[in-house]
Amino acid sequence: MNAFMFEIISIVIAFIAFIFAGWLYKWVEKQPSSNAKIAQVGGLIRQGAKTFLNKEYRVLARFAGVAAVLILVFLPSPIWKGEYMQNILMALSYIAGTVFSAIAGKIGIQIATIANIKAAEAAKNGIKPSFMAGFRGGAVMGMAVVGSSLLGVSAVFMITGDTTALLGFSFGASSLALFAKAGGGIFTKTADISADLVGKVELGIPEDDPRNPAVIADNVGDNVGDVAGMGADLFDSNVASMAAALVMAGALDALSGAAINVSMVFCYAAIGLLASIIGVAMAKIGKHGSPTRALNSSTYVTTAIYGVLTAAATYLFDFSWRIWGACIVGLLVGVIIGIASDYFTDDTKKPVHYVARASKSGPAFTVLSGISYGLLSVLPAMIGIAVAALAAYKLCEPMGDGYAMFGISMAAVGMLSIVGMIISNDAYGPIVDNARGLAEMGNLGDKVLDITDELDSAGNTVKAVTKGFAIAAAGLTVIALLGAFMSEVNTAAAELGVEGLVGFDIINPMVFFGLLIGAAIPAVFSAMLMLGVDRNAQRMVGEIHRQFDTIPGLKVGDPNAVPEYDKCIEIATNGAIKELIPAGLMAIIATLGVGFIGGVQAIGGFLTGNIVSGLLLALFMSNSGGLWDNAKKYVESGHEGGKGSDAHKSAVVGDTVGDPFKDTAGPSINTQITVVSLVSSLLSTLFLTMSLF
Amino acid sequence: MNAFMFEIISIVIAFIAFIFAGWLYKWVEKQPSSNAKIAQVGGLIRQGAKTFLNKEYRVLARFAGVAAVLILVFLPSPIWKGEYMQNILMALSYIAGTVFSAIAGKIGIQIATIANIKAAEAAKNGIKPSFMAGFRGGAVMGMAVVGSSLLGVSAVFMITGDTTALLGFSFGASSLALFAKAGGGIFTKTADISADLVGKVELGIPEDDPRNPAVIADNVGDNVGDVAGMGADLFDSNVASMAAALVMAGALDALSGAAINVSMVFCYAAIGLLASIIGVAMAKIGKHGSPTRALNSSTYVTTAIYGVLTAAATYLFDFSWRIWGACIVGLLVGVIIGIASDYFTDDTKKPVHYVARASKSGPAFTVLSGISYGLLSVLPAMIGIAVAALAAYKLCEPMGDGYAMFGISMAAVGMLSIVGMIISNDAYGPIVDNARGLAEMGNLGDKVLDITDELDSAGNTVKAVTKGFAIAAAGLTVIALLGAFMSEVNTAAAELGVEGLVGFDIINPMVFFGLLIGAAIPAVFSAMLMLGVDRNAQRMVGEIHRQFDTIPGLKVGDPNAVPEYDKCIEIATNGAIKELIPAGLMAIIATLGVGFIGGVQAIGGFLTGNIVSGLLLALFMSNSGGLWDNAKKYVESGHEGGKGSDAHKSAVVGDTVGDPFKDTAGPSINTQITVVSLVSSLLSTLFLTMSLF
Repeated sequence: MNAFMFEIISIVIAFIAFIFAGWLYKWVEKQPSSNAKIAQVGGLIRQGAKTFLNKEYRVLARFAGVAAVLILVFLPSPIWKGEYMQNILMALSYIAGTVFSAIAGKIGIQIATIANIKAAEAAKNGIKPSFMAGFRGGAVMGMAVVGSSLLGVSAVFMITGDTTALLGFSFGASSLALFAKAGGGIFTKTADISADLVGKVELGIPEDDPRNPAVIADNVGDNVGDVAGMGADLFDSNVASMAAALVMAGALDALSGAAINVSMVFCYAAIGLLASIIGVAMAKIGKHGSPTRALNSSTYVTTAIYGVLTAAATYLFDFSWRIWGACIVGLLVGVIIGIASDYFTDDTKKPVHYVARASKSGPAFTVLSGISYGLLSVLPAMIGIAVAALAAYKLCEPMGDGYAMFGISMAAVGMLSIVGMIISNDAYGPIVDNARGLAEMGNLGDKVLDITDELDSAGNTVKAVTKGFAIAAAGLTVIALLGAFMSEVNTAAAELGVEGLVGFDIINPMVFFGLLIGAAIPAVFSAMLMLGVDRNAQRMVGEIHRQFDTIPGLKVGDPNAVPEYDKCIEIATNGAIKELIPAGLMAIIATLGVGFIGGVQAIGGFLTGNIVSGLLLALFMSNSGGLWDNAKKYVESGHEGGKGSDAHKSAVVGDTVGDPFKDTAGPSINTQITVVSLVSSLLSTLFLTMSLF
Repeated sequence: MNAFMFEIISIVIAFIAFIFAGWLYKWVEKQPSSNAKIAQVGGLIRQGAKTFLNKEYRVLARFAGVAAVLILVFLPSPIWKGEYMQNILMALSYIAGTVFSAIAGKIGIQIATIANIKAAEAAKNGIKPSFMAGFRGGAVMGMAVVGSSLLGVSAVFMITGDTTALLGFSFGASSLALFAKAGGGIFTKTADISADLVGKVELGIPEDDPRNPAVIADNVGDNVGDVAGMGADLFDSNVASMAAALVMAGALDALSGAAINVSMVFCYAAIGLLASIIGVAMAKIGKHGSPTRALNSSTYVTTAIYGVLTAAATYLFDFSWRIWGACIVGLLVGVIIGIASDYFTDDTKKPVHYVARASKSGPAFTVLSGISYGLLSVLPAMIGIAVAALAAYKLCEPMGDGYAMFGISMAAVGMLSIVGMIISNDAYGPIVDNARGLAEMGNLGDKVLDITDELDSAGNTVKAVTKGFAIAAAGLTVIALLGAFMSEVNTAAAELGVEGLVGFDIINPMVFFGLLIGAAIPAVFSAMLMLGVDRNAQRMVGEIHRQFDTIPGLKVGDPNAVPEYDKCIEIATNGAIKELIPAGLMAIIATLGVGFIGGVQAIGGFLTGNIVSGLLLALFMSNSGGLWDNAKKYVESGHEGGKGSDAHKSAVVGDTVGDPFKDTAGPSINTQITVVSLVSSLLSTLFLTMSLF
């Protein structure tokens, strides 16, 4: 079979995924719902999420438009050099990347705001139907994201036949993800923190109490942050890993004349989606089964299927077993890193117990112990990524020049192969979280709340694992992108007839210069996002106070007193959009600055510093945040004094600190790293020819 | 003049510093003191500090003994290879490094525990005499540290004539500093946090109230953490910067046959000490002058004198103006970084005001905003270090092979040239902090307390600046040490007849492997220290509760009820010693693991990752900590509700989180980086010949 056939197969499997997603969508929609209150609140959530998304996409469309024009003029090389077709293709690929990402996010929101209602109502009939509604809702998102990334990459590659255009597509996906993740992250935590602060802490009313004017915004936030944002993030990583692998595969194939490496990338990616489809279809839970186990076992099933099918394909199509090995190493390390993050955030393990106990001495100890364990949690993941990269490299090195870096990129593809399953699990979380809120607001009673609580808690546990996984995958992907960057620079250098790169020497002061500045960027980026949440939450707290003070009967729970939910949604929306731009632009401008000052060597260092410190901070923040969240829940379930105790108050402080850590800054860093890597690759020719030094 | 003359001059100036220190010591001792209560409490502090230091040094002596035996057997090359004289010299140099560092720490504690009493009593006569007692006490430490580092380096170099032996001396200084800083840091924050937690938060008694059983331990902690620990840290950096410069200067001189570069290093270092002596001697304060201004202007005077004298020397002895430029760049960047950290921690600037205002919304916002500004504060320092390294490199590159890295090492020497002044300012802090406590316990009245408060606050402000400076200096030093490592590897490779290093290529998977693991180490190291403080503080809180519960009349303030201060000191001491070992060993063992697995390439990456993430975390933690401390003080001075308000309670939580950040983990990371760099340089031959890959 030739490469073209594999591209066709990829497209076919992408469409199978879409059809499956459509079936799941219908299935979810068909589930019964009757409660008027839930329907009403669910409608508000849906409306709020749509409003936010539309506003956000309008702003991003303007940004993307400007970027597309710049790409048209300057990339891959200035348009006045005459090769304008390349520039047009690049700009179109970029736009396609943003549009695909936006559509996937839109579909995710669409289904999530139906599935939450269904899961809430289904909980009346037990854990099984409720779980299935949540999980299948999440799976729609999973299928949509992976299907459209595979379709997009295959289509762009088939049409343009150019790997550089793929980087344009990937950059489109990334730039949208950067803002979607950051914007959604700011929105969700603004609402969450403000609702908790005034509701739970000041007034002592329960979470999800409909009196709280921010409660709908909080539920909207789960959708726009965790569903749309996380979807955009993993869409981005998935596309970037394929793009990086294809850039290198294309270069290798051009040398050998055969298209075997490109074929392999498409074949493995298609199998990954297929395995996820099977895994999702097979997911089930017993009548009294554990939702956490159900989610995890689907992941393991998918992993196993992927391993077997890729081995079969490798045998059948005579692919290299070495590259298969690299791919499997990536996959296994991804699972191991997920398990390691689970250790640091699971409420049956030592770290959560330690933090809960420390909370008895006051909030400072909650914070200190959580930060400490978060910092410790960095080690296993960093070792895992380091070992995966080294093993993939060493496995493929004997195959010849260039194969070693290609091996690393295939490890990233392997790690991301089960991403359809990962997104399904991940989107399940906010759906059942919302379902819990709806059950509370619809007065479905304590038995139903117990069920939704259990589903929600499983969502939290799995979320920690998938976040660890997402960060690790991004880590490996950007290492591969570093290789892609070098490959792009060398192609450009060959065309220009100047000396290419053999590597980035740390002893070279330009590399070191870039390294130090690159390392500072994720710190600044996350600080800007957290300050954005902080500022925005302060505005919203003011608004909640105003409503409680001016709407008669609201505080005491008069059923006729209706809070103005939309005001809170508006504040969260406007604030998020206002705060997301500067942080994203800062990262891009810093890249341009370093590149035009120090050239490609400085950029090599810059990317490296950015990856290293980005991984460090993202892992630290995500895991600390997850740990605090679960420590609070652990105390609430009756340990160390239980609800209302001093330990609980401290644990709530920890959780509040953790909120922007784990849902705003931590997971946005991923995207920041990818964007910066792609900007560098795209501008490699300019940095090579136009830098100050 | 030849190099020998400059070494002699260095030794002479070191002795002048000792004589000056002796004069200052006598001067401080001669200041009047009459209050019996102060004398008694001061005696307890002195006794406690001595007990801790003796215990710590006993443990460290055992560690150093084992390390010396290992060095004797294995370094620079295994003793059975026959060149045992080298090994003996190396082991002796190592021991000398530890002993010099220990003596300097001991002298510092000796004078600090006299000067605190004098400064407290002098405050009765106004700010001027009190300031002078505090400053001159600190200056004894400054002179002792810089004098002994210059003496030690000159003597070892003169006796052995071998730059590798210098690395042994530097490693001695570093390994002692690693444990002294970490141990002192754990001690001081254990005591500080526990005293605050029970005293201020639970019982509402003021800071430094003599009823609190932990109050003496708290004051002892200021001495062992800030005086002895910081002294050891800067002794270490100062020696390491000279050692790195001399290793490279030696290699360059060996090629050219002239000893001009070695001469230059000694000349510049000697001038640095001389400038500090003059700066200290000229320091003064008006009758109603500002102590902050007095401290800062002494620093600027020293900087100016250094610039002029080195220029004169360069002209006179025909040194290279390029290298002089590199040195001055380092010095200026050091000052600029200090000013930048000042911005993030000064209570007249925006960050402190922002954090204080955020505290009104609860402790989570204090923590979040403090962390955010701490992360932002990383940027100017990283840019500063990056620019300094780049400028020094580019300035010296035209001089020929090897001069570029030598230029960076001279920038580090330049940055550390005024370290005598820096230590004086730094040691001033804990002395006046102690004086404040003594004034409180000796009932010297509100007017005296106002004066000591002002002196203390100046100490805090200056401390933030000197910490930023110390971290930046360590950063530049370890970049230079990376050069020294390469130089050592190449010397070894030449002797073994194997291929040397031309650099560390990031694309090399071994380098990347080391990079990722190296980056995780400072995170793990600081987490271990913070958890150590946490565990130790919990033990101590238990003991304080026990005393309040079992000693009759203690809680109500019965003057006959005397708390058992020594019990608290014992807990802090034993806990610190128990907790300091694992963190330090972890860093060293990780280095050995990476080196023996991945060889010199992996170590190159490891050191780079370690430097980058170490700088990031150290700057973040030190600045966040300083910011919270000053935000709390800002609220206490009447802003945002003042003492007792909700904002104040939140600010106290921030300060407690910041305590181990700024005084335990943050500043210990410096030493961790240096130790790891030196271990690598010393073991370069072994890593080159005995690694797994």
